[in-house]
Amino acid sequence: MRLRRKKNRDIRFERCIDLTLEPNSELKNQFYNIFDKNKATEIEIGSGKGGFITQLAKTLPENNFISVERVKDCILMGMEKAKSAGLQNIRFLCADAEILTEILPSGCADVIYINFCDPWPKSAHAKRRLTHRRMIRHYLPLLKTGGEIRFKTDNDGLFEFSLQELSDIGFELSDITFDLHSTDTFNILTEYEKRFSQMGVKIKRLVARPTDKTYQMISKL
Amino acid sequence: MRLRRKKNRDIRFERCIDLTLEPNSELKNQFYNIFDKNKATEIEIGSGKGGFITQLAKTLPENNFISVERVKDCILMGMEKAKSAGLQNIRFLCADAEILTEILPSGCADVIYINFCDPWPKSAHAKRRLTHRRMIRHYLPLLKTGGEIRFKTDNDGLFEFSLQELSDIGFELSDITFDLHSTDTFNILTEYEKRFSQMGVKIKRLVARPTDKTYQMISKL
Repeated sequence: MRLRRKKNRDIRFERCIDLTLEPNSELKNQFYNIFDKNKATEIEIGSGKGGFITQLAKTLPENNFISVERVKDCILMGMEKAKSAGLQNIRFLCADAEILTEILPSGCADVIYINFCDPWPKSAHAKRRLTHRRMIRHYLPLLKTGGEIRFKTDNDGLFEFSLQELSDIGFELSDITFDLHSTDTFNILTEYEKRFSQMGVKIKRLVARPTDKTYQMISKL
Repeated sequence: MRLRRKKNRDIRFERCIDLTLEPNSELKNQFYNIFDKNKATEIEIGSGKGGFITQLAKTLPENNFISVERVKDCILMGMEKAKSAGLQNIRFLCADAEILTEILPSGCADVIYINFCDPWPKSAHAKRRLTHRRMIRHYLPLLKTGGEIRFKTDNDGLFEFSLQELSDIGFELSDITFDLHSTDTFNILTEYEKRFSQMGVKIKRLVARPTDKTYQMISKL
């Protein structure tokens, strides 16, 4: 996502500093000083402007939330939303998905959300898709035993790819729908989802739980 | 499938009588006198004119095959194909899917094929779809532990429904593709598949293996 560089970005960042996580290996050791281990932790990878995860953090005050986004101007918008709502149960991590296992502890997440990630439509770029096995190996270790990945997209090609890829590497799939908004499932909309849904694009959704086969296959990559 | 009533149907049936299975409960007791228990058994439910399963029986002479089709004029065409090819490893059963567990032994099948079944597009008719849980319960008991259902369709709506339904009742899904003919998978085409594929329609395919959750959910229906 390209955004104009925010005015006074650094000053605005400073104001939200209590909501940020420093993307370094020290975070692994500090994690359970920051987050209560007894509470469920939900992570969104690629949270953009943070509309989804801040709304979720409001809705589920008993859970911990981590917004991961690599674009600094985007993550700032999420931080400011959380700040103005006075949320205490969410933190923001400006980092690439590829380094998450280096900075977050294994098994820290009950849920990982991937919402409307870049579809990388060319097959030459397939490995960059967040649901490609080579990307999954970067964040799968974060998931607790029994945890799940919740994935939404408007992109037919990416959804088809993801169904195929996730099933091939042994994920147990459930809650598959090709038209999420026609169901009565509880659903918080992302900014992107609101816009595209208004244009009549159907939103696709699935839930994936890793099995032993998944861990075996990922470990061989 | 509607076909004109075949000329001399009964006489032609008689000629293939050695390839037919009588759809009655006696079949359950006789099954392993007819089929070698040590060989894999593959069943196609709704085999139409039998092009797929007779071709498969030729390709895999070591396995047993059962063609299930409820339309007598259709099944006759499959029987005549098998007869003229001199196939010994295939039998034909003119029956509704709903009665299969009454006439075939539990756990007799390694693979169940469902190819291009009626999509029943109206939601009021969803229960008639062969991949609806209420239909699945009629043939799931036939599947051996570790066995699988292989499903193909050209119909987007039916494929989407099937992905959703099968994942919801705990099937483990694999080999999902939205364009089978673009892959290099071994694939025998049905008559219908040849025609629709020539028209540019993409063929969708999945493989589904039941889990404990599947048996639990089906038993509660």
